[in-house]
Amino acid sequence: MDKIKIAIFGSNGYTGYELVRLLLRHPKAELCYLGSRAYKDEPYFKVYPNTFKKLDLLCKDEDINEVAKEVDLIFTATPQGFCAGVMNESLLQHCKIIDLSADFRLKNANIYEKWYKLEHKAKGFLNEAVYGLSELKREEIKKARLIANPGCYTTTSILALYPLVKHKLIDLNSIIIDAKSGASGAGRGAKEENLFCEINENFKAYGIASHRHTPEIEQELSLAANENITLQFTPHLVPMQRGILASIYTKFKGKINELRSVYENTYKDENFIRILPVGILPQTRFVKGTNFLDINFVFDERTQNLIIIAALDNLLKGAAGQAVQNMNLAFGFDESLGLENLGLL
Amino acid sequence: MDKIKIAIFGSNGYTGYELVRLLLRHPKAELCYLGSRAYKDEPYFKVYPNTFKKLDLLCKDEDINEVAKEVDLIFTATPQGFCAGVMNESLLQHCKIIDLSADFRLKNANIYEKWYKLEHKAKGFLNEAVYGLSELKREEIKKARLIANPGCYTTTSILALYPLVKHKLIDLNSIIIDAKSGASGAGRGAKEENLFCEINENFKAYGIASHRHTPEIEQELSLAANENITLQFTPHLVPMQRGILASIYTKFKGKINELRSVYENTYKDENFIRILPVGILPQTRFVKGTNFLDINFVFDERTQNLIIIAALDNLLKGAAGQAVQNMNLAFGFDESLGLENLGLL
Amino acid sequence: MDKIKIAIFGSNGYTGYELVRLLLRHPKAELCYLGSRAYKDEPYFKVYPNTFKKLDLLCKDEDINEVAKEVDLIFTATPQGFCAGVMNESLLQHCKIIDLSADFRLKNANIYEKWYKLEHKAKGFLNEAVYGLSELKREEIKKARLIANPGCYTTTSILALYPLVKHKLIDLNSIIIDAKSGASGAGRGAKEENLFCEINENFKAYGIASHRHTPEIEQELSLAANENITLQFTPHLVPMQRGILASIYTKFKGKINELRSVYENTYKDENFIRILPVGILPQTRFVKGTNFLDINFVFDERTQNLIIIAALDNLLKGAAGQAVQNMNLAFGFDESLGLENLGLL
Amino acid sequence: MDKIKIAIFGSNGYTGYELVRLLLRHPKAELCYLGSRAYKDEPYFKVYPNTFKKLDLLCKDEDINEVAKEVDLIFTATPQGFCAGVMNESLLQHCKIIDLSADFRLKNANIYEKWYKLEHKAKGFLNEAVYGLSELKREEIKKARLIANPGCYTTTSILALYPLVKHKLIDLNSIIIDAKSGASGAGRGAKEENLFCEINENFKAYGIASHRHTPEIEQELSLAANENITLQFTPHLVPMQRGILASIYTKFKGKINELRSVYENTYKDENFIRILPVGILPQTRFVKGTNFLDINFVFDERTQNLIIIAALDNLLKGAAGQAVQNMNLAFGFDESLGLENLGLL
Repeated sequence: MDKIKIAIFGSNGYTGYELVRLLLRHPKAELCYLGSRAYKDEPYFKVYPNTFKKLDLLCKDEDINEVAKEVDLIFTATPQGFCAGVMNESLLQHCKIIDLSADFRLKNANIYEKWYKLEHKAKGFLNEAVYGLSELKREEIKKARLIANPGCYTTTSILALYPLVKHKLIDLNSIIIDAKSGASGAGRGAKEENLFCEINENFKAYGIASHRHTPEIEQELSLAANENITLQFTPHLVPMQRGILASIYTKFKGKINELRSVYENTYKDENFIRILPVGILPQTRFVKGTNFLDINFVFDERTQNLIIIAALDNLLKGAAGQAVQNMNLAFGFDESLGLENLGLL
Repeated sequence: MDKIKIAIFGSNGYTGYELVRLLLRHPKAELCYLGSRAYKDEPYFKVYPNTFKKLDLLCKDEDINEVAKEVDLIFTATPQGFCAGVMNESLLQHCKIIDLSADFRLKNANIYEKWYKLEHKAKGFLNEAVYGLSELKREEIKKARLIANPGCYTTTSILALYPLVKHKLIDLNSIIIDAKSGASGAGRGAKEENLFCEINENFKAYGIASHRHTPEIEQELSLAANENITLQFTPHLVPMQRGILASIYTKFKGKINELRSVYENTYKDENFIRILPVGILPQTRFVKGTNFLDINFVFDERTQNLIIIAALDNLLKGAAGQAVQNMNLAFGFDESLGLENLGLL
Repeated sequence: MDKIKIAIFGSNGYTGYELVRLLLRHPKAELCYLGSRAYKDEPYFKVYPNTFKKLDLLCKDEDINEVAKEVDLIFTATPQGFCAGVMNESLLQHCKIIDLSADFRLKNANIYEKWYKLEHKAKGFLNEAVYGLSELKREEIKKARLIANPGCYTTTSILALYPLVKHKLIDLNSIIIDAKSGASGAGRGAKEENLFCEINENFKAYGIASHRHTPEIEQELSLAANENITLQFTPHLVPMQRGILASIYTKFKGKINELRSVYENTYKDENFIRILPVGILPQTRFVKGTNFLDINFVFDERTQNLIIIAALDNLLKGAAGQAVQNMNLAFGFDESLGLENLGLL
Repeated sequence: MDKIKIAIFGSNGYTGYELVRLLLRHPKAELCYLGSRAYKDEPYFKVYPNTFKKLDLLCKDEDINEVAKEVDLIFTATPQGFCAGVMNESLLQHCKIIDLSADFRLKNANIYEKWYKLEHKAKGFLNEAVYGLSELKREEIKKARLIANPGCYTTTSILALYPLVKHKLIDLNSIIIDAKSGASGAGRGAKEENLFCEINENFKAYGIASHRHTPEIEQELSLAANENITLQFTPHLVPMQRGILASIYTKFKGKINELRSVYENTYKDENFIRILPVGILPQTRFVKGTNFLDINFVFDERTQNLIIIAALDNLLKGAAGQAVQNMNLAFGFDESLGLENLGLL
């Protein structure tokens, strides 16, 4: 296949821009349509002057059903509810869709409606939608028409815990995920709480016992364990732009001297998951600007706790990077195409 | 005089909070009224949890004419146009007013209307209003009913240039002020351009040749020089919360070995202006959290330019601190009362 | 008692400066001696230009035994080992000592030597030294000659857990403290890992299962519980200057509807501990520049975990502020004297 | 030509890492040797864990004369004096050298020795060395054996002023460059002044009338004007990692309505210089992570000053990016190869 034609809905958000940035240099991608209600008919470089002289498209605000007829793939980097609101069979017959919102991540519409306080408008497609955690659903993604790209906290947490849960190496009721994210995770909405002077030089927890990524993590880990898992998830806001780091606490039940090889074997063929060498803990700067997820762990003899540390770039492996990885899978390209960059300092 | 009763309009902004913070520990101040339309009837600690257990007032949204009857002093830390919009003779008969907006800073209403694109609603009070640059207008401030508190860039620039202009030590047509400010200067409005991810890790110029503080600086320096001065003023945004630093370029015409004593003599009795020792240049962190303005200079033999560096905390000497200094003058208190703090690291 | 004469050893570090800043405006304190080996014979404003025109002392590097004869109180804000290295009976007969290092915090010298990899040079004084957690040891501090000022992570953790541990409301083996600190906690040493470009825009964990504050927290909570407690403590580095926030996970065993009153009763007479209202979680900015410790909690019905969030300013309640609070207690001053400030934005 | 073999001396600094990052994905480059005295024999991922699993080289510390025999090109990202100290004819017969230090930038060794306070050890090569400002010296660079890669402030300033100076559109004695840089410009040396807590939340000027980039800017602009130019250059430190923005003030003498086309014509064939559209001023974030230099200008009718704003990424177009651009020229590759990235948000 030659270049595929691509549309992005919600191209003026931070995730939208990252998609643009990645796809502009992707050898198999042709950006055809940039959707943005707020910047309709303005050149995209008015939204992101970074792109001046590199990208000549105007922002548009057209019917997604019409757009679908002209492209091979639509990314929806839109608010919760948009993608479910427009979903229909004809759409998926014209093109594939990778949805970066939460609309098709949870298999159970009741859970979606409870945690998101939104009616789900396309329950009929929940079954078909493939949860786009590339490393765990690779074969399904290859065949999917509708891919639900996972959340940023979620990708970090699931991939860090997957080998432990699958092999029952921990007490499944003991999982505590203390996660920390940079501010780009909150998006580009003009809210007082996201102002520079509110976030800078501050650190806070939020959404304790109520954050929407909780059921998504539980759903996928329960699948891996073949058993219902309930866990603690606490997000925090770090005064930086990009990056998530999760510190995960569990009661370890396995043999500690076999643990490293469990992790390494699980992910031995993965390009984007790095089990760091003993003594080097993940830091968000090591993955900034990349599609890597870095993992390492420490076992505390005193408490018998296993502490796992995992880090990724929330806009890349946690959003646009994984979306492009899924695009590569879905269109039969090399999975790493356009994603090889090393991190910026 | 015992404690004076004080009202603050616009108490939910950053300058409003700084007034609250300073006045709460001021031995002669009693905070009686905190105005905030957005937080009407909510406890002030909902706006700034910093104040929990230290301040028990509710936010209110009452008619300023009624409030004026109950207090000795009103601070208006409100948007441009508010104070002029409500000004009337009866108000000033009930209490003094210190306005932290620009409404009464420019003596010429035409210039105000040109630079601010706002009709001036109280031209009749422009003459009475005293420009509240404490060090230069001390005697008038003591007697004033209506004090126009200066802008932050303005205070920095005028005080740094005043000795040079007054003694005609520079070419008056050569002044270039390249100023840099932290983000709190933009206030607490929820605008996309003030989001953390837009300001952090970025540096930009703005308002070139058109910033509203320009005519205010020109007005006061022209007065000092007894001659019309037109100058270049360029503001920039620094990814930090507080602080302004101005780098000022002028053609020096005086004797360089006398310059230090000119500065030191001009400000020798001032508590809040420091001419730093030779070799120590002002930095914003040296004045953060204080009411100081720090000044130093370098003369370049190669170019014959005199470069003056000046720094202050935009929320203190550039706003709330100077407003309290003016309050101290206007009510006969010690000028430094409540303003003695050293800077936080 | 009129003003007390004070010496600070290690006055050029960040904690040293905070002591200077607090004591300069403390009505009962007279700063007499500022020790700094690196800046010997230089004016203190060369170290911290913030203090120019406000403090006229030179840095000195004299024998502590001689200094002790001239003052009422010595603060040692010095590296581990210094205070123990110079400790002797005659010193304590001349003046009180508040040590901000870890030398006298742990009662068991073996534990000190194991975690700090340093020989303890003054074991004979461990018994006499009072652990200076002001709220829990008030009466002993009043009479103490030698006060071991607690660590920053430690103060946060102990005070947040004390009511739970004392009243056995949690499973004592379930404590997990996930703590996050600003960079000033690492001190002013010129190390690559503390450079701006290494810390900024980065988040990392460090010292997992091995951080030195662990045994200190365990010692004091075990005392409160009258039972040996082993716990998990994980520190992280936040790209900001000041502030610690701890997210603490425990298995709750008590009655959740009584928990708030347990906290409020425990700390009802405390000026510096605030149990925040329901729904307002601690954030580091609410305590920045203050001596407050803010606490709140959330109980998760799904997991039966109790999550406690606590925040303080690591240089104030976590170091210099608590040291001054202890000074106030030890000399019979009002406990809050010189510590009343509200936080800077 | 197939892939060229490359050595980097000084690979552990920030510029060294950027070279590694760029060259790792450059289709014509093969990284063969990473020099680092401090990390000798350690894997490079110990220095920059970002590179784990992507680069398998050990750091080495070998004689540059031996290394030269094995490679086609050496980058020296080393301290001032190193490259001049090792320079000899045989070296240049074995390979090309791109020196990122200042050793071969100034044609006059006296000026070098005066501004750098260092004896120049290879005066004989000053004449041969080509000043590597790619856009202005393209033809010479193609043939050069020794390329002196320009400074970061210098590249910004020269390219922003070049069209004005060449066409004599300004008073050549009126140039004032007020430049601001992120902290990575200071390198990775462990100095107190580069600590996070010293730079964060602070803004300062430094090196007024004495910064070493001054004679370099003057040398190249004088060449362009065919006339000696003396100018004012003032650098400042911004609390961010990457990016330089220069605000340049000049007295304009030309026709303002022709100015835009002068700029656009001068740079119409350049891939890495963007004259932004009217009304969009350069910001450092628009060029972060790219090899772009963005330029725009404002003419102030009131003062007759022309203000030019220019921005680049100090580690890319200001250092490693331009070095790779020069490598592309020197080896006959497409000039943009490996440098096409858009900026990271």
